[in-house]
Amino acid sequence: MPLGILGGGQLGRMLAHPAALMGIPLLILDSGPNTPAKQVSLPPAPHTQHPDGAFTSAQHIRELAQKADVLTVEIEHVDADVLAQVEADGLCTVQPAPGTIKLIQDKYLQKRHLQDRGIAVAPFAAVPEQPTMDHWKTLERELGMPLMVKSRTMAYDGKGNSPLKSLDAGDIQQTMTTLLGSAGGNKLYAEAWAPFVKEVAVMVVRNVAGQVKSYDAVETIHKDSILRVCFAPLRVAGGHGMSEVNKRAKELAERAVATLDGAGIFGVEMFLMPDGTLDSPRLPNSHTDTLPATGSLMINEIAPRPHNSGHHTIEACETSQFENHLRAILSLPLGSTSLRVPSAAMLNLIGTSESMQPIEDACNAAYGVPGATVHLYGKAECRKGRKMGHVTVTGSSDAQVRERIGPILRAMPDLAASFIDALSTPPQTTATTTGHSHPQPLVGIIMGSDSDLPTLLPAARILDAFKIPYELTICSAHRTPARMVTYAKEAAGRGLRCIIAGAGGAAHLPGMVASETTLPVVGVPVKGSVLDGVDSLYSIVQMPVSTFSSSCPLRQPVADILCPRVRV
Amino acid sequence: MPLGILGGGQLGRMLAHPAALMGIPLLILDSGPNTPAKQVSLPPAPHTQHPDGAFTSAQHIRELAQKADVLTVEIEHVDADVLAQVEADGLCTVQPAPGTIKLIQDKYLQKRHLQDRGIAVAPFAAVPEQPTMDHWKTLERELGMPLMVKSRTMAYDGKGNSPLKSLDAGDIQQTMTTLLGSAGGNKLYAEAWAPFVKEVAVMVVRNVAGQVKSYDAVETIHKDSILRVCFAPLRVAGGHGMSEVNKRAKELAERAVATLDGAGIFGVEMFLMPDGTLDSPRLPNSHTDTLPATGSLMINEIAPRPHNSGHHTIEACETSQFENHLRAILSLPLGSTSLRVPSAAMLNLIGTSESMQPIEDACNAAYGVPGATVHLYGKAECRKGRKMGHVTVTGSSDAQVRERIGPILRAMPDLAASFIDALSTPPQTTATTTGHSHPQPLVGIIMGSDSDLPTLLPAARILDAFKIPYELTICSAHRTPARMVTYAKEAAGRGLRCIIAGAGGAAHLPGMVASETTLPVVGVPVKGSVLDGVDSLYSIVQMPVSTFSSSCPLRQPVADILCPRVRV
Repeated sequence: MPLGILGGGQLGRMLAHPAALMGIPLLILDSGPNTPAKQVSLPPAPHTQHPDGAFTSAQHIRELAQKADVLTVEIEHVDADVLAQVEADGLCTVQPAPGTIKLIQDKYLQKRHLQDRGIAVAPFAAVPEQPTMDHWKTLERELGMPLMVKSRTMAYDGKGNSPLKSLDAGDIQQTMTTLLGSAGGNKLYAEAWAPFVKEVAVMVVRNVAGQVKSYDAVETIHKDSILRVCFAPLRVAGGHGMSEVNKRAKELAERAVATLDGAGIFGVEMFLMPDGTLDSPRLPNSHTDTLPATGSLMINEIAPRPHNSGHHTIEACETSQFENHLRAILSLPLGSTSLRVPSAAMLNLIGTSESMQPIEDACNAAYGVPGATVHLYGKAECRKGRKMGHVTVTGSSDAQVRERIGPILRAMPDLAASFIDALSTPPQTTATTTGHSHPQPLVGIIMGSDSDLPTLLPAARILDAFKIPYELTICSAHRTPARMVTYAKEAAGRGLRCIIAGAGGAAHLPGMVASETTLPVVGVPVKGSVLDGVDSLYSIVQMPVSTFSSSCPLRQPVADILCPRVRV
Repeated sequence: MPLGILGGGQLGRMLAHPAALMGIPLLILDSGPNTPAKQVSLPPAPHTQHPDGAFTSAQHIRELAQKADVLTVEIEHVDADVLAQVEADGLCTVQPAPGTIKLIQDKYLQKRHLQDRGIAVAPFAAVPEQPTMDHWKTLERELGMPLMVKSRTMAYDGKGNSPLKSLDAGDIQQTMTTLLGSAGGNKLYAEAWAPFVKEVAVMVVRNVAGQVKSYDAVETIHKDSILRVCFAPLRVAGGHGMSEVNKRAKELAERAVATLDGAGIFGVEMFLMPDGTLDSPRLPNSHTDTLPATGSLMINEIAPRPHNSGHHTIEACETSQFENHLRAILSLPLGSTSLRVPSAAMLNLIGTSESMQPIEDACNAAYGVPGATVHLYGKAECRKGRKMGHVTVTGSSDAQVRERIGPILRAMPDLAASFIDALSTPPQTTATTTGHSHPQPLVGIIMGSDSDLPTLLPAARILDAFKIPYELTICSAHRTPARMVTYAKEAAGRGLRCIIAGAGGAAHLPGMVASETTLPVVGVPVKGSVLDGVDSLYSIVQMPVSTFSSSCPLRQPVADILCPRVRV
């Protein structure tokens, strides 16, 4: 018996490919004979046609349920009550549970549900049907200003969201006009403005047997509330040092999905906050650039289906979100969610008008980029703000992926140069004579005292020459032992791949740092005023120092060590 | 205007996926409404159906040519004359050139063509239509015995090949009966038996503008003349040391394809010989295990289309062979052929009978393996020897991929345990007290004299403990300088990732080895009878040694150095 899918758009299209690979027959319910999904999936032999009707049509859903083993959705805006009924009538199973779909359809109820179960969400409150100025003032008092006012239902891709900047009557009028004209009608709610550092998302999948896996968190970058770019793995300033945030994001997403019934894949969108909380809702109205060193996470919303922030998984992960959704709802073991490439980015191809030309331009740019795969969705018409396709770019490093996406982003006419530059500029060595502090260093040069600098400076110069980003700082085993331990312990997590530690005399720094990290540590003995450096040489070579370098600049020992290994 | 494809089998199916992604409309000519390719590609809107007819039918080809911009083939057993005619009539372009398809259809003419252009092929000769014993004796004299007798046309996947072991009348009778009953009829030729070490294959793609790219060579493993397993990148004993063979294989394949007209992808199958040539055709009748250190390459055959030995490119490369074929024939720039994963294997799912059960068993095994992607072809019926699908497995190392394929191979009932073990066993440390010579070492431990052994043995023991394969040998800067230079120069190419060099006294070995390799070299000073080891310590730390280790076994310095970096 086939699998029935409600909705035949791009998510159905991307489900159809692994379905074909795994030999799963599909019946796709959507209006028209050649929707994106129907274009790539012949209906199974005994049925001559995919059902042609609205995925909200009770009659069509019931008919489909009679022909299918399992029903699933590629869009949550379906008739969840009918789904509950066909399941109650024993016609077939529905995954995820109709109750979950229904809950998620109403973003206010979704947030209530999560909040009631102790899952962090941005502060929110219902908006009455005919809000008075008193109502707005109460909302301002509770949530601060600006507010994000949203339709409770049918809000997606920038539709049904409107920021309210002040309680000025004109602003309120504009927000109400925008939202009441939208598909979601007059059920509204308000959220506190979340001054997030980053938006991150985690795809979580649970199969019928209850096995749960989540993909590594990704960074999602929106423009006009539409996802534009997604980076995997999670990256922020600090490079590879986001493992802690990744871990917490996965935990939060898995906890949230654990509160929802049914099998399948779920997209969990989150805010990474600068200070860990939204306790003070009156934070400045701006997306800050502060590093999220200990930033807390709160859930924005959950989608009970494959999600745009998981499209990179097709090329970048051992099992795509689409294949894992099929595995999950068809009682197969879940596939590995690990990345199969070091780094990936997903760029959405968003219509800017009725013309397909900008989309074609971006595709042509992508055809010239190594590691880029174009995904067009086969939509009959282009419209402003419509998702017409996406491009996934993989590479051997974050820096390579950033370089690769540049030409594709530059072919998109609606993106500002500053937006493109911020996303596509690879890390550059910015060392000057006054500062050696790259925001995403791969190498840390440390020394016990600034008097050691002349011995260590050649290492910095060689890293400059090879454009390897580094930081240079003072850190003493004897004078700042706690700082040294912290530096060593956090080095790998911050993305460092090597430490060069210089020390004279007793020269404990390299050995003590090596004791606290598995990174290679290059010890550089510094010649003191007595003993001609033999003291520090003996000290360093007798300690559990990972690597050793003569300090003789003529031999360029640091380059010898780093070049074959540190690749940016 | 759509692209027309002659043939709607699995190769067409795999072409249909990137065609959909790139928005290329397809018309697929094959018999029946739901062939593997037609299942995943709705015909473009103005045409209600894919053409239903034989891909050899002149009428259907002409009709298709009138509806298409470009025609291509997913199988070479088409009517090449009709293709030449439709092109001559200006109906559409055909890629690759019909003359190329026609030439390749006749394996004897294909080999003549290559030989005439100086491309290495195994010695071969035509077999007359009614061969007498005298004819056979001449063939034996020219080519040796045994012979591989082949149909000139319609030979593929083990069909149309028959080894002739001797000139015994019974043997001849059996070969003739086998071949004359095959689809290729009575046009035969004979090839010298190639006692190859490995079979390798390279996919080469050339676009309309003449741009050429080739994929890295893969190792192909056949059973009963049917491809079963394919490993990428090329691997043989020696691990990563096959770059030279890879380079030569790509060169040979590109040279061969340069002699053929037209755009598209070509699969070039080659033999890697133990001694570089087949000058002496009377080599022993066995596939030897000798290492192909300087093995020469000769071409077996060329396919003018996507090929089974390139299926791994879907998951493993930046652009798949299928997408690159489409790019090539549709005047797009070629995509990157680089691997996007460190290692991959492709396992064919071959029918063993009419039952699909063994195929399903292998798929179920694959669903439990991280990094495995199942590709079923949607064929209506299973038959013995029929390609029903394949599984691609990717991983972070050759060793991981080998481990991963084990459970899938073990689910295939027609494979012997020894065959499976040979393919799926990862390298193991086999060090004993009498030999420290792993065939695929990652670490080389060298020393100037066996008197240094007690100092170096702790390194070997630690490698044993971590199951890191290594070799241990004597190599002296002063007594065997030429051997030392060769060892250092070849180390990286043989797959070593690190060298541990011990030396006492003047202790030139580590520094001299480091001068000839970019691999990290760990210098271990050995204490002599005088000067307490300070002499060798000073020598080693002053030379361009990449890394240094105190020889004190208590501190396990070698483990400190190797563990964070050498991952098997």
